[in-house]
Amino acid sequence: MTSDFGFGSPYVAAMKAVLIGAGVQAPLIDIDHDLAPFDIRAAAFVLWAATRDFAGLPSVHLAVVDPGVGGDRRALALDCGDGRRYVGPDNGLMEFVLRHADRPVRAVELPVPAGAAPTFHGRDVLAPAAAALASGTPLDRLGAFCGELVRLHRDEPQVLWVDRFGNIVTSLRALPAELEVAGHRVRQVHRTFADAAPGVPFLYLGSLGYVEVGLRDASAATQLGAVVGSVVAARG
Amino acid sequence: MTSDFGFGSPYVAAMKAVLIGAGVQAPLIDIDHDLAPFDIRAAAFVLWAATRDFAGLPSVHLAVVDPGVGGDRRALALDCGDGRRYVGPDNGLMEFVLRHADRPVRAVELPVPAGAAPTFHGRDVLAPAAAALASGTPLDRLGAFCGELVRLHRDEPQVLWVDRFGNIVTSLRALPAELEVAGHRVRQVHRTFADAAPGVPFLYLGSLGYVEVGLRDASAATQLGAVVGSVVAARG
Amino acid sequence: MTSDFGFGSPYVAAMKAVLIGAGVQAPLIDIDHDLAPFDIRAAAFVLWAATRDFAGLPSVHLAVVDPGVGGDRRALALDCGDGRRYVGPDNGLMEFVLRHADRPVRAVELPVPAGAAPTFHGRDVLAPAAAALASGTPLDRLGAFCGELVRLHRDEPQVLWVDRFGNIVTSLRALPAELEVAGHRVRQVHRTFADAAPGVPFLYLGSLGYVEVGLRDASAATQLGAVVGSVVAARG
Repeated sequence: MTSDFGFGSPYVAAMKAVLIGAGVQAPLIDIDHDLAPFDIRAAAFVLWAATRDFAGLPSVHLAVVDPGVGGDRRALALDCGDGRRYVGPDNGLMEFVLRHADRPVRAVELPVPAGAAPTFHGRDVLAPAAAALASGTPLDRLGAFCGELVRLHRDEPQVLWVDRFGNIVTSLRALPAELEVAGHRVRQVHRTFADAAPGVPFLYLGSLGYVEVGLRDASAATQLGAVVGSVVAARG
Repeated sequence: MTSDFGFGSPYVAAMKAVLIGAGVQAPLIDIDHDLAPFDIRAAAFVLWAATRDFAGLPSVHLAVVDPGVGGDRRALALDCGDGRRYVGPDNGLMEFVLRHADRPVRAVELPVPAGAAPTFHGRDVLAPAAAALASGTPLDRLGAFCGELVRLHRDEPQVLWVDRFGNIVTSLRALPAELEVAGHRVRQVHRTFADAAPGVPFLYLGSLGYVEVGLRDASAATQLGAVVGSVVAARG
Repeated sequence: MTSDFGFGSPYVAAMKAVLIGAGVQAPLIDIDHDLAPFDIRAAAFVLWAATRDFAGLPSVHLAVVDPGVGGDRRALALDCGDGRRYVGPDNGLMEFVLRHADRPVRAVELPVPAGAAPTFHGRDVLAPAAAALASGTPLDRLGAFCGELVRLHRDEPQVLWVDRFGNIVTSLRALPAELEVAGHRVRQVHRTFADAAPGVPFLYLGSLGYVEVGLRDASAATQLGAVVGSVVAARG
């Protein structure tokens, strides 16, 4: 379960009640509920990052960052073909899941039942679909296959995410000789934090497969003044 | 499990140890541990909001916002008659659960065992009772039925809660023609956020059944300067 | 599961994927993921405080506060002999677990598999070991027994932790007649918060067995200006 409702939100609890009420036996796992509200791109990255290691495991990922709820955005259920199924709005939230999929992703549009709260499809549309998938209902029983999904455009190189330690995760996949981040040039490259000198930001290939900028025992993002969306420039 | 201990508190972990040690097989679900300390009214609202959808499901809700722990406030176990059982202090925390109950609520007073830590009844009094209920022990085996519970007085119309998006949940149940909130008049009424114009606060009937004030893609509470307890006035 | 990754971190989710993928049937319990990054002593205290009540219960505690990941610090699995097993880095994080152990603690050094991400042993070294222990693998099958573990030196009396209410947990085990905390003298001693007068900080023996300083319905730490690491002095 991933959302921008906030850990401890009654909205999260309400979705759990739906899942339990529908007889879901699988453990309910809170991935993240503190996603930045209204920021689809950052949420899309974290959703993929948090669920990529579930590839190969039968799992259903209920994702709700949904500022357009009640409007004409579609509600989706997706099957990645590797055990992972996703349920969420068709607003770009699935961008990184789709970008990293190595098999064809099948998607259906979920109907909105009469009586669904117009401001809370998470409880009334998405959670019931997640419960059905977790209970073995085939994807194509949940709705009609749909065509192109909403995608986020490919972006210029930028900061995708900053983790709690202040490590800067960029959109680059290969280590450059030099990276400019928020006006600072980073040239040191290390394999581990233990190899780095305190106080000197360095580049490394992070555990997610993206180039990151770190700082030993401190926050690189704070020292460099980088935030999500900051432009980066690779050289060499 | 709902408390004001803070997510990640060792106190929450200690209560989980009690539940697991007592053989509870049901999944332990964290509802909220970030309730405002010492604010019983707001906690009482969130407790009800987070657990109302469990009506019809056998469930035990352990709720600890307990500034009077160790004093003469009673410890309670409640049965709502619809599957939901609650365990917590008798300090008004059950107010909204009681206010919304559609069946008679039965309540017993829990004895305090010798050796209970005087500052942590959550671990030593409430969690054991929750474990017993979850394991099938009947309510009346946990203590003597008790009379009137501590109630919070009915309040003038006010802000009950502000969610993470900044939506303002008021104590009103029916949409007025106009609502004054923290000195601002809100007249627009919409069904969904997608119907609203950016920048203009609007009224809607929220998924909890209370009148809310929202703002598309932004925080209504911040824009209007409303906080929990702010007085509201309905007109028309 | 205890870490400094942050609640909602994809890193936590990745470790859960490893545990589930390895077939762990036991419930996954989030203890704390908001430990202060880089602060081993405070983390060590909270880790012990959060898991001490699991003594007597078969349980595996995966703890990751690991600023030296990828360097030459060892990775450990520990058995306390009372059901509790711990997996984590050998950097002092186990200090309070060891200090409070009432049986000999056995410890093995976990090998680092080729291909482990040099910045994320939590996922690639520690979580697999935790999964193995949870699935019944004996400790001595995970690695070679190792000698002295990294310990934190015994410290002068100080503040070990401040809880969410602002209660100050000191390193003292017995109530003194007077305690100086951050330049303030505290002389009142009470058994419970209900016994205390508002506005007057007081001493009590907390539920963790350490001397604490509390303030009725308010934060003692804020009023006294105490933080983790503040020196305290007992008199009498």
